[in-house]
Amino acid sequence: MDGTVPERRTRPYDALRPVSFERHYTRYAEGSVLAVLGETRVLCTATVEDRVPLFLRGTDQGWITAEYAMLPRSTDRRTQRASRSGISGRSAEIQRLIGRALRISVDLHRLGPRTVTIDCDVLQADGGTRVASVNGGYVALVDALRTLRDGGAFGALPLVSCVSAISAGIVGGVACLDLDSAEDRAASADVNVVADHADRFVEIQGTGEEAPFSRSEADRIFDLCLKGCREIRERQLSALALSEEERAPLVF
Amino acid sequence: MDGTVPERRTRPYDALRPVSFERHYTRYAEGSVLAVLGETRVLCTATVEDRVPLFLRGTDQGWITAEYAMLPRSTDRRTQRASRSGISGRSAEIQRLIGRALRISVDLHRLGPRTVTIDCDVLQADGGTRVASVNGGYVALVDALRTLRDGGAFGALPLVSCVSAISAGIVGGVACLDLDSAEDRAASADVNVVADHADRFVEIQGTGEEAPFSRSEADRIFDLCLKGCREIRERQLSALALSEEERAPLVF
Amino acid sequence: MDGTVPERRTRPYDALRPVSFERHYTRYAEGSVLAVLGETRVLCTATVEDRVPLFLRGTDQGWITAEYAMLPRSTDRRTQRASRSGISGRSAEIQRLIGRALRISVDLHRLGPRTVTIDCDVLQADGGTRVASVNGGYVALVDALRTLRDGGAFGALPLVSCVSAISAGIVGGVACLDLDSAEDRAASADVNVVADHADRFVEIQGTGEEAPFSRSEADRIFDLCLKGCREIRERQLSALALSEEERAPLVF
Amino acid sequence: MDGTVPERRTRPYDALRPVSFERHYTRYAEGSVLAVLGETRVLCTATVEDRVPLFLRGTDQGWITAEYAMLPRSTDRRTQRASRSGISGRSAEIQRLIGRALRISVDLHRLGPRTVTIDCDVLQADGGTRVASVNGGYVALVDALRTLRDGGAFGALPLVSCVSAISAGIVGGVACLDLDSAEDRAASADVNVVADHADRFVEIQGTGEEAPFSRSEADRIFDLCLKGCREIRERQLSALALSEEERAPLVF
Amino acid sequence: MDGTVPERRTRPYDALRPVSFERHYTRYAEGSVLAVLGETRVLCTATVEDRVPLFLRGTDQGWITAEYAMLPRSTDRRTQRASRSGISGRSAEIQRLIGRALRISVDLHRLGPRTVTIDCDVLQADGGTRVASVNGGYVALVDALRTLRDGGAFGALPLVSCVSAISAGIVGGVACLDLDSAEDRAASADVNVVADHADRFVEIQGTGEEAPFSRSEADRIFDLCLKGCREIRERQLSALALSEEERAPLVF
Amino acid sequence: MDGTVPERRTRPYDALRPVSFERHYTRYAEGSVLAVLGETRVLCTATVEDRVPLFLRGTDQGWITAEYAMLPRSTDRRTQRASRSGISGRSAEIQRLIGRALRISVDLHRLGPRTVTIDCDVLQADGGTRVASVNGGYVALVDALRTLRDGGAFGALPLVSCVSAISAGIVGGVACLDLDSAEDRAASADVNVVADHADRFVEIQGTGEEAPFSRSEADRIFDLCLKGCREIRERQLSALALSEEERAPLVF
Repeated sequence: MDGTVPERRTRPYDALRPVSFERHYTRYAEGSVLAVLGETRVLCTATVEDRVPLFLRGTDQGWITAEYAMLPRSTDRRTQRASRSGISGRSAEIQRLIGRALRISVDLHRLGPRTVTIDCDVLQADGGTRVASVNGGYVALVDALRTLRDGGAFGALPLVSCVSAISAGIVGGVACLDLDSAEDRAASADVNVVADHADRFVEIQGTGEEAPFSRSEADRIFDLCLKGCREIRERQLSALALSEEERAPLVF
Repeated sequence: MDGTVPERRTRPYDALRPVSFERHYTRYAEGSVLAVLGETRVLCTATVEDRVPLFLRGTDQGWITAEYAMLPRSTDRRTQRASRSGISGRSAEIQRLIGRALRISVDLHRLGPRTVTIDCDVLQADGGTRVASVNGGYVALVDALRTLRDGGAFGALPLVSCVSAISAGIVGGVACLDLDSAEDRAASADVNVVADHADRFVEIQGTGEEAPFSRSEADRIFDLCLKGCREIRERQLSALALSEEERAPLVF
Repeated sequence: MDGTVPERRTRPYDALRPVSFERHYTRYAEGSVLAVLGETRVLCTATVEDRVPLFLRGTDQGWITAEYAMLPRSTDRRTQRASRSGISGRSAEIQRLIGRALRISVDLHRLGPRTVTIDCDVLQADGGTRVASVNGGYVALVDALRTLRDGGAFGALPLVSCVSAISAGIVGGVACLDLDSAEDRAASADVNVVADHADRFVEIQGTGEEAPFSRSEADRIFDLCLKGCREIRERQLSALALSEEERAPLVF
Repeated sequence: MDGTVPERRTRPYDALRPVSFERHYTRYAEGSVLAVLGETRVLCTATVEDRVPLFLRGTDQGWITAEYAMLPRSTDRRTQRASRSGISGRSAEIQRLIGRALRISVDLHRLGPRTVTIDCDVLQADGGTRVASVNGGYVALVDALRTLRDGGAFGALPLVSCVSAISAGIVGGVACLDLDSAEDRAASADVNVVADHADRFVEIQGTGEEAPFSRSEADRIFDLCLKGCREIRERQLSALALSEEERAPLVF
Repeated sequence: MDGTVPERRTRPYDALRPVSFERHYTRYAEGSVLAVLGETRVLCTATVEDRVPLFLRGTDQGWITAEYAMLPRSTDRRTQRASRSGISGRSAEIQRLIGRALRISVDLHRLGPRTVTIDCDVLQADGGTRVASVNGGYVALVDALRTLRDGGAFGALPLVSCVSAISAGIVGGVACLDLDSAEDRAASADVNVVADHADRFVEIQGTGEEAPFSRSEADRIFDLCLKGCREIRERQLSALALSEEERAPLVF
Repeated sequence: MDGTVPERRTRPYDALRPVSFERHYTRYAEGSVLAVLGETRVLCTATVEDRVPLFLRGTDQGWITAEYAMLPRSTDRRTQRASRSGISGRSAEIQRLIGRALRISVDLHRLGPRTVTIDCDVLQADGGTRVASVNGGYVALVDALRTLRDGGAFGALPLVSCVSAISAGIVGGVACLDLDSAEDRAASADVNVVADHADRFVEIQGTGEEAPFSRSEADRIFDLCLKGCREIRERQLSALALSEEERAPLVF
């Protein structure tokens, strides 16, 4: 049954929605990117500050952290602001994922005693906001590193990896790549994968709340996700227009 | 000395920065407008809900309210999210102003037992975010009323006024219209005015924290503000493309 | 129509309610004043602390800030304490106004690395609590400066201005000075003005939520407010019994 | 050694400081009393509302509750407002005591489905604020019951007890009644007692944090406290000017 | 290289630490289980309440939710209580996982309009607290369902699945099952898996923060986890002593 | 009537429920004790940290503080976690009592610049949780002091007192020792006493919310409490197995 396309889906089961990264979307941040994934739009900004969290004081290591929020009307129904209801468990979970994923892409010792904060604010949500945040956050992060380098903070960019993310799930019995929110509601399994430039897993978050999924279904989902991550990576690198020198440490 | 243009300002003392309203900026809200004022950009969405606040239960009256927030890196330095530090006094003050200003434009009895929430999220801040929020919020509100009308909630739009806002201040001894953030920091007085379609005052918020301003300076500032509001109003109405029938209750 | 007195008002349209300032109302604060305005009573205390806010560290400048709260039963109906519901938007707005207004009256460099906190606690509220807070807060502030001077912190008081406040509005079509809460509920416009000793505007907060007001109505309201501020100023100075030397910097 | 007066104390070991109750201190509350105990001044207001807490819904019983707060500068050093730091453990402990003590004085079934909230706001604190709050709170409560009776809520007041409170402690080895804050800091034991009109204990809160106290010291302290409560009771009843009929249920 | 046992580990790479479930650990809850996994001990209680969350009102469906917390000194260093610092992102993430995992085991329609809350309080933490919580939570949940059945809420238990969880990771290049906290700190990858009784994935949470892991490493980890879950399941079922009838719907 | 045993009580009016202290209950804390009192079980851990609260900075004095919480289902009905609803007034009151009581047992100057935090987490609650917390907290505290001594922080333990606690009340007109929760609900008076090794009062908390109690009833209650504290003390000392040298400063 694999390979059959669910009726409402107008693109192949293994195709991404349109992906783009608009750099310099706002003017003040050291990195600012509008990440687009189908109808999902996330504004990712990278802020550099000359301080580190308490637990890193006295080391020479830097830090990368993320915050994630949805604008109240980014979705079909208005959701309360976190300033009223507190950060939701879902947002807490997502921003922890983004932070972990992006930290792996940088040599934190070469970054030096600085914190880069990636703010991911969802302007419009149609599924995949967490993976769009990782993808756009990576582009914003590299731009912020370039700003630091141009200011003399270090010579070569302290990049050690590229980081890309995508989701896949089982819809109508078929493993499909990159679910929009309608597909997501219909899916029996939903898996988010973050991969590095060597197709290795950085993060896996899979849930079968509607119906558990078998080992072989998992295998098909992982295949799709790694394929999707490769395609996302191409768009990230193309948007970043990395020079030979910048691309060197990524070794691919 | 009036009429002299401060050195760093490249447009006349009485000229607005470029103003525009991009409607349908996001897809889910009943009204969604990107309000642009120079480099300031505010996303204003209007959400309609079939409920009223506690203090209006049992009446037939509707309500209009507003929330205002700045994205963390909309400004030169990153500011903490309100979900961490609580809503600031400044944000509380601004969202109260927006709510009061927009309520005056609608017949709340004809609106019926509904709440329209105007979310004003600042994507980029270069001075004038509160007035841009009022201006864009008005456009989003009218679009939301149209959605309600088209759904049969009422016949004619329950509009009773147009509402436009602008700031002016004393910079280098000269009264100037529409201060950007550099001018605002240099200003000795800073006044925000909201006016209706008949050039009447809906709100005045003036502060002379750096230096008090005289009655005659106040007069020059009010003249500029009312001129600015008239020009804003033209852009709002032009963006809204109101039909004859829609424009009738505004009587101008 | 101006000059006509609304029926329920038993004093002329341009008359203040009884105004008084009872100094040394409590015993511990460096300044402690019960400000009375008709039936409105606000306890204003000034506390001096040898520290400055974070954003002034490393400068030689001091700071003046204010906090405002209503006792739960200062009003006709009990309101929840801010310790339960958070500081309301209204309180946040008012305490920001008080702080800005009082800061203009002092040379913060001559004040030195100190913070003066003005606590304004409303014991009984019958309209005009924010202007009573500014007026009483000024008297408490001057007493606190005297305490500092007597302790050797500086020679002459670092006063640069007197600060007085009053409200006016349109009731039954008539511009009236100093609205009590019944008049306030009936008013179509409500304007608060803070003025310095030279009749200049320090703050203007005007709202026409019930009905916008014209430029000429605004003019009548400002005339009344400046007249009211002059009368308040006399009571403040008389209560303070300023010596020649103390009064000198105020230049009037 | 008992009976020796500590040096700094200018009144006998078993004498109260001046006690008074000023009724109708503010104008809106159903009961409003300024309770004075030496230099301690607490504003106690009683508010009646036609609702009961969740856990009493569906019963015919009413409720009495209390809230306690100190104005920031009621003390020698300014303390942060609870709206910033949360209600302190000390305030929580005190307001629970006040509520329990006052509930015992009323037949909650005859009170009917109403809540009386006693707000105790300390204007000036020189020791004994919790007992002054109980004492003044009782007077305010009776006035609120009178308001209810006069409005037809019930015939006779639903009073079943008088409630009075005082503290005593061991200062310099001597048991002393009614400690001011200087004595309190010097005391090795500190006991608060609430008693009813028949000299029975309603509440005992004793602490020997500086030095534990023996059974015989406890006995002397309790003797003093019951004597003090009797004297307070006389002042409460005298201030209330209870009629024969009102006093009847108190049976003394 | 697989199969080599890391030096500090005294059991085979594919062996669980001692696992046990002590039912009826506390007396009031409908289900109460101490889940032991090596030195990790989690108290899991199940509470039944006759209400459902807002979003289920008006449906006939029940709900299962979870809360997770660590006692302050369950770990090597004391951590602040969530009542002081707010629920951490980590706790929020974990309790969402537990809730999702347990919901899959029950037919929520047959559960009826009830909420079962699983409280997982970590008494002692040595790695694997989230999987111990899922495992013990399942046992407590089944006991709570039995209490409901015995009270007549339904005939057969509304169980549809068994739910078991375990972690595995790469330590010193070797895939190992069930990491304690020392191993966890040394691991380059850390994966938590929840499986149902048919060896299908209910949840996968994998992170390679220290070093990304390859597809083949992921395969070895998943093999270990599914083996571990099978062994855990035996202990859960043995502790529960399910009757033939109770076990029937689990179909294995 | 005194001395008559209430019907539902199966032990004499002056008998404690079974009391025990299980030391080393968890493995990480410097002191860890399960305090058992009938069906009440409280886990008391003592944590030593090399810091002191702000108000002790610059002194050579240490500090002892306590936190108290009930697990959500330690009681018959589930209670919300303090992380959701804030620390309750009751918990705040209890943890203040525990802290004050334990501080009296130690010479804080000899403790040195350290804080010992006693966490009291109620696993199961059947009345008397606060006294069980004091009793178990004392045992955990002594174990933590031993850990410090063995690490060279000081020579002899800085103990100056033993601290024990128990409750008593009036049930069916009879003074009874150590009320379980059913008795507590039926009691007309409820008194908690903390005593030192010389039978002196450290804390008294008595309430007669249901019915005030006379001086002679108070006397009988205090007799029972002091007897109960002596018996508790024996169990504490026996569990601690104090050496001659450790016991010396307690002088009994």
